[in-house]
Amino acid sequence: MKKIINNPETFVDEIIDALLLAHPKWIKAANADKRALVRADAPKQGRVGIVTGGGSGHMPGFLGYVGEGLCGGVAVGNVFSSPSSEQILEATKAVNGGAGVLYVYGNYGGDVLNFDLASDLADAEGIDIKTVVLTDDVASAPKERAADRRGVAGMVFAFKCAGAAAERGDSLDEVARICAKANANCRTMGVGLSPTILPAAGKPTFTLPDGEMEIGIGIHGEPGTHRGALQSADSIADTLMRQILDDLAAPKGARLALLVNGLGATPLEELYLLYRRAAKIIGDDGLTVAWSYVGEYVTSLEMAGASITVMLLDDELEALLDAPAHSPFFREGTRA
Amino acid sequence: MKKIINNPETFVDEIIDALLLAHPKWIKAANADKRALVRADAPKQGRVGIVTGGGSGHMPGFLGYVGEGLCGGVAVGNVFSSPSSEQILEATKAVNGGAGVLYVYGNYGGDVLNFDLASDLADAEGIDIKTVVLTDDVASAPKERAADRRGVAGMVFAFKCAGAAAERGDSLDEVARICAKANANCRTMGVGLSPTILPAAGKPTFTLPDGEMEIGIGIHGEPGTHRGALQSADSIADTLMRQILDDLAAPKGARLALLVNGLGATPLEELYLLYRRAAKIIGDDGLTVAWSYVGEYVTSLEMAGASITVMLLDDELEALLDAPAHSPFFREGTRA
Repeated sequence: MKKIINNPETFVDEIIDALLLAHPKWIKAANADKRALVRADAPKQGRVGIVTGGGSGHMPGFLGYVGEGLCGGVAVGNVFSSPSSEQILEATKAVNGGAGVLYVYGNYGGDVLNFDLASDLADAEGIDIKTVVLTDDVASAPKERAADRRGVAGMVFAFKCAGAAAERGDSLDEVARICAKANANCRTMGVGLSPTILPAAGKPTFTLPDGEMEIGIGIHGEPGTHRGALQSADSIADTLMRQILDDLAAPKGARLALLVNGLGATPLEELYLLYRRAAKIIGDDGLTVAWSYVGEYVTSLEMAGASITVMLLDDELEALLDAPAHSPFFREGTRA
Repeated sequence: MKKIINNPETFVDEIIDALLLAHPKWIKAANADKRALVRADAPKQGRVGIVTGGGSGHMPGFLGYVGEGLCGGVAVGNVFSSPSSEQILEATKAVNGGAGVLYVYGNYGGDVLNFDLASDLADAEGIDIKTVVLTDDVASAPKERAADRRGVAGMVFAFKCAGAAAERGDSLDEVARICAKANANCRTMGVGLSPTILPAAGKPTFTLPDGEMEIGIGIHGEPGTHRGALQSADSIADTLMRQILDDLAAPKGARLALLVNGLGATPLEELYLLYRRAAKIIGDDGLTVAWSYVGEYVTSLEMAGASITVMLLDDELEALLDAPAHSPFFREGTRA
């Protein structure tokens, strides 16, 4: 195990300590155990609050997307584990500015359970809640069962679009509609080259022989759709993009946002090789890359690998991508 | 080898293709082989141009720091190899706005040779050149021979401060003085947990048994000062910070910028654990963390590990850190 850690038991709490120490102008703790974090300026009166959450180990995933024009709060679980409903409720109360709260999170059993419980608890306290469950991972279920898919890096676009809508003062219904549209317009496929080691377990979550890759892998090491010898960057991009674009079925001439995301250990250089081919495929298909995002947006600790996300744009979504957003982690895309 | 690449021979050129494709509003090629890249708005008339350069494999190192309030141009070498003097000269000519050009790069033999050659060539073309060679790596030579030290992640502060000075219209002498001060005020120490594999070689640059670490390692895998069993995050931070702070000898009450930099494969979570302890040590020493930077700033392909950089601040340097800067890669620090 090649990890720079102290005690696996306190891994997450130490990271939160460090974040609060490094970025006090950005986030504050909403509860005593510090597992509910919110924008330093929360609550924003009259604005919809957006609460996300999930397991730790995906940085900048989840807590990195709390910020201006992004989410208002986050509930922070242990590594790859859902936060509790109480932690979600604490985040909810702390971001509630009287205009309702939107829950946005990935489609995983524990998260669904706990966010649903928190929603009931918040209702009982008189806070309007709406929920959008993110389902952008093409590999995790066939198109006929798209609602069963897992949520992965497409969350970046859901947070960005919903966050911009909330920041400008849209209603809860509107923010939820926009967030659901962003999710519905996103498709992601990943490839893993090495497993993740959980700090507490100290051993890999799965095995993948050197020189092999797993196409369609999830951000917790969930099995993909194909395992085989490692292919070239172009070949990997071809495989991922073909499934993404077939599933998305964007009309000719459509404008797309393209996100090439590193899962943790893969160098930025290699992400740009995937970007290069993915952008070519999009052009060859008569589509346009209107926005480019390349870097680590949603990771899986030290997993080597990457994912590609495509979001089909319209004028409404493009305006929301263009709106200001800021956190110490969010890396703006580049408009073509 | 777990690399997402195509042909090792075209690795760097494909990355540059991708960058030009993804970020055309940011950079443009200054020469036919595209190994000299400059700001899209270069040359800035009446402003000092700043040219950096070095080997590839350090992204966002070098080419990621071309941008507003940063460098004006970069010469891009092969992986871990110096760019040629011709490539440096092409970048020089393309950023020359008539106010002279500052060369800023790390202290490595090939880079020194080629930048010096380029300086002579630029002189012959009537372009005033000044040079600051970066030497922030404490581990690479003792304090008595500080000028022999290698340049590592401290380059981020040198680029930021010099870039801000150039952007506001300072003279070549002033920009060079500020850059030299930023470098003189920086100290960096790294730790490596796994080697880097060069795409062309296909095998590790050095071996490091699982469960071991190398303190003081360079960003090309240069040997460090100590190899031994992997220690805890706190213990590693203690070791790195003690050498940094002893060497820096900052006066009590001094304000510091603290950069915890990932070398490639180490998760952001682990960098924050190092940050947490480093910030505590600084506080315990009666010093203040005034600016915080955590993330991947200068990498070594897929090396697992991190470095810590401290810059001693004064009012002049703080104002320059505070000035606007933008590239698709530069991640602003957080002011305490």
